[in-house]
Amino acid sequence: MAVTLKEVAERAGVSRSAVSRTFTEGASVSEKMRRKVEKAAKELGYSPNALASSLTTGRTKLIGLVSNNFHNPIFLEVFDLFTRGLQDRGLRPLLVNLSDESQPEQSIRMLQQYSVDGVVVASSTLPPDFASAFRDAGVPVVHAFGRYSSSPCVHVVGIDNKAAGQMAARTLIEHGYTDIGFMGGPQSATSTQDRYTGFMSEVAAHSGVKASCSFASAYSFNAGRREMLRLLKGRAAQAYFCGDDVLSIGALSAVADSGFSCPKDVGIIGLNDMEMARWENINLTTIHQPIREIVSSSIELMVGLLAEPDRRPETRIYSCSVVERGTLRPMP
Amino acid sequence: MAVTLKEVAERAGVSRSAVSRTFTEGASVSEKMRRKVEKAAKELGYSPNALASSLTTGRTKLIGLVSNNFHNPIFLEVFDLFTRGLQDRGLRPLLVNLSDESQPEQSIRMLQQYSVDGVVVASSTLPPDFASAFRDAGVPVVHAFGRYSSSPCVHVVGIDNKAAGQMAARTLIEHGYTDIGFMGGPQSATSTQDRYTGFMSEVAAHSGVKASCSFASAYSFNAGRREMLRLLKGRAAQAYFCGDDVLSIGALSAVADSGFSCPKDVGIIGLNDMEMARWENINLTTIHQPIREIVSSSIELMVGLLAEPDRRPETRIYSCSVVERGTLRPMP
Repeated sequence: MAVTLKEVAERAGVSRSAVSRTFTEGASVSEKMRRKVEKAAKELGYSPNALASSLTTGRTKLIGLVSNNFHNPIFLEVFDLFTRGLQDRGLRPLLVNLSDESQPEQSIRMLQQYSVDGVVVASSTLPPDFASAFRDAGVPVVHAFGRYSSSPCVHVVGIDNKAAGQMAARTLIEHGYTDIGFMGGPQSATSTQDRYTGFMSEVAAHSGVKASCSFASAYSFNAGRREMLRLLKGRAAQAYFCGDDVLSIGALSAVADSGFSCPKDVGIIGLNDMEMARWENINLTTIHQPIREIVSSSIELMVGLLAEPDRRPETRIYSCSVVERGTLRPMP
Repeated sequence: MAVTLKEVAERAGVSRSAVSRTFTEGASVSEKMRRKVEKAAKELGYSPNALASSLTTGRTKLIGLVSNNFHNPIFLEVFDLFTRGLQDRGLRPLLVNLSDESQPEQSIRMLQQYSVDGVVVASSTLPPDFASAFRDAGVPVVHAFGRYSSSPCVHVVGIDNKAAGQMAARTLIEHGYTDIGFMGGPQSATSTQDRYTGFMSEVAAHSGVKASCSFASAYSFNAGRREMLRLLKGRAAQAYFCGDDVLSIGALSAVADSGFSCPKDVGIIGLNDMEMARWENINLTTIHQPIREIVSSSIELMVGLLAEPDRRPETRIYSCSVVERGTLRPMP
């Protein structure tokens, strides 16, 4: 039933190679030839089958894109950048939603069934061995937003979360706060653990500054709001580093609802600098995580892995920077 | 090189049928048998290839999920629901990002190359013939958030946007506003056109109520903010129906930045009831679009189409309802 390349060539009155080149990304073919071939292909209902050809080339050009938090608006930016970046290189993202799972077995099996060429794990909350399980199963993998390591098991692209935690504490201290709090994401997340370690190490270097800490159950608005409401009922700190922007926005809501004002009564600094942090009615002071660079670097490493699967795993770490907006009191 | 089903059966000491059933979703196999087979498969590095088998079954179980607005937070909910719903049925979403395109040719070609079993177009801004182009190309298609039609060309699931526009105007009028504005999304979007028509038809039924109208360039925070800043510089209305929630949040930001207060000086009602509208520091009065039902109904129709491709196209329309929160003044 399927129309063959040969039939299209005959109909268009061109060589089979010309048809093949028309449907190969990046191959050279004149505009006139392309039009002829596409017309014949359309009339016959022909379309080249990437999956059938994958059985001979061994390549499907499908990349699994694995995420586990669809309640954090940052992921809309991440998906946007990944899908566009992959599309630009002729690759296609197969989206995998692990919202309720943290065991890799099922998603490995699923992605292997689809013979994906590779997998990008886009998460700061999945443990490092989640990504290495793909490698162990023979699937090229890049862990975006993964944990820094000097001897990584797989390609990791992200930030140094310890340095980011230090930067947050330093910023609060520079703004004159002496009683500061760490309100992190889920304690099981490596990003939370590292941001906490960095935060506390900076505090330890400043005598006269005291710090408290607590954790929200997830990187989500509701979790941030709930945790901040609880904190404000007790002896609250002067200012908080909330583990990320969506937690911060939840915390801002709790501050207002508790009858306090930010930054007058309580200061807040977030992390990510997601689109929403820049919205004028949120105007969140935050630590900029270079999402765009992390995504494009992840794609670049994936493309490299596809060409050279045994490439030695590397860690690419991008620097963060403080973005001052309206949720900390002015520097003294 | 590839491990065969036969080898797994021999290693596990079971029949080939038992191996096949273990890897077929929904097929009956005892827990003991499954463990035996999975152990052997793991030792041999076997995984069933959905794509290879697709060449005999004609089914890839891949569903193209096409969207064109990654700046509207509503789509994170939409992607979450679609990916989970498809996964639950053994289908896999191939995400397509059409942010800068509205011509279907390229995405049709791309999705055909991947032999997707079907396509879900999830957009209220793409024209109806975008979805029908897939049908014309022989690809089963469901248009989620599409335009209501009594004789649809393809399956359409969504809301009656005219009725929603009427509901918005009626709500503003019930709240005692007599000078109201329609601040829509892009004028080329069918959702905007229909919401506008409904809004104006309701206004026409109320003597003593006057209405103005304008359009933002996109369903985005920045577009909503920009348009509302412009409106507030002139002779502004008492209250606005902003085409959707993200436009409303942009408008709320503009209201605050112009030195006004909502709902004291200007009222706002949105549409969608996305997660963020419920955030206490946004607290947006809005029209609830039943996203969850629209997504699950779209998946149901897709599954039906896969079983019976010639099924007559139908339109499934879900009712909206007003969610009163804090951005309109109390009813008189």
